[in-house]
Amino acid sequence: MQPRVSIITIAANDVERLAAFYEAMGLKRHPGFGDDVEFFQLGGAILALFLRADAEKDAGVEFAQGIGRVYLAYNTLSDAEVDEVLAQARMAGGRIVKPAGRAFWGGWYGYFADPEGNLWEVAHNPAFPIDAEGRISLPK
Amino acid sequence: MQPRVSIITIAANDVERLAAFYEAMGLKRHPGFGDDVEFFQLGGAILALFLRADAEKDAGVEFAQGIGRVYLAYNTLSDAEVDEVLAQARMAGGRIVKPAGRAFWGGWYGYFADPEGNLWEVAHNPAFPIDAEGRISLPK
Repeated sequence: MQPRVSIITIAANDVERLAAFYEAMGLKRHPGFGDDVEFFQLGGAILALFLRADAEKDAGVEFAQGIGRVYLAYNTLSDAEVDEVLAQARMAGGRIVKPAGRAFWGGWYGYFADPEGNLWEVAHNPAFPIDAEGRISLPK
Repeated sequence: MQPRVSIITIAANDVERLAAFYEAMGLKRHPGFGDDVEFFQLGGAILALFLRADAEKDAGVEFAQGIGRVYLAYNTLSDAEVDEVLAQARMAGGRIVKPAGRAFWGGWYGYFADPEGNLWEVAHNPAFPIDAEGRISLPK
């Protein structure tokens, strides 16, 4: 396994509702899919929204109802951008799970949940640099 | 929000056990952390393992016990590589959730779960090209 992740899938109860949320967050829905699956290019990876019943059938599993133990973070270039992204999430129909505040590691961060309760951290962490293409790196 | 994801966090009951699994999968643990949090560079993103109790306290939420609705996919360059990655996951202490087989969309794929039950799809999908740096793209 090479050090990469290809697709992050959110098993959605309502694919269209979540797709509209992520569009309102600024992501671009690929026009070639629809209905039970939607894809968004996410830098060098892909965000997929896949109808929960179909995803469960495909993998032969049942997903837990609550907040999953796998969650996502969007790192920003500034403290102010954290506030902006959280405000955007609230406007788009998300829920502020934790308002922005100072982190013990020195940065500025908060959490939102999308309309189906999937958790995102939004953080400005200057110790993890972000390049011009949006790629984040661990400290050297 | 720009089209990128920065960090994928797995809230872990046993950070060291999961870190050992992901090392056995070929990922490199960053040497600068440890104990309750570990980081792995994952292309232009980062995989974090964060002690579940700490993650819950940080976000002010409680994670569901079962398989989360957010799950990951590792796309390969060949059908054979799917088989290899699934075999590697089994050797490393993971569980084969769905053995490799032909997908309705034409590719070859299966699923494994890490030692704490977090789901990964492993798929060869020639319609989603992967470049030399491991970046995957949706079809044009």
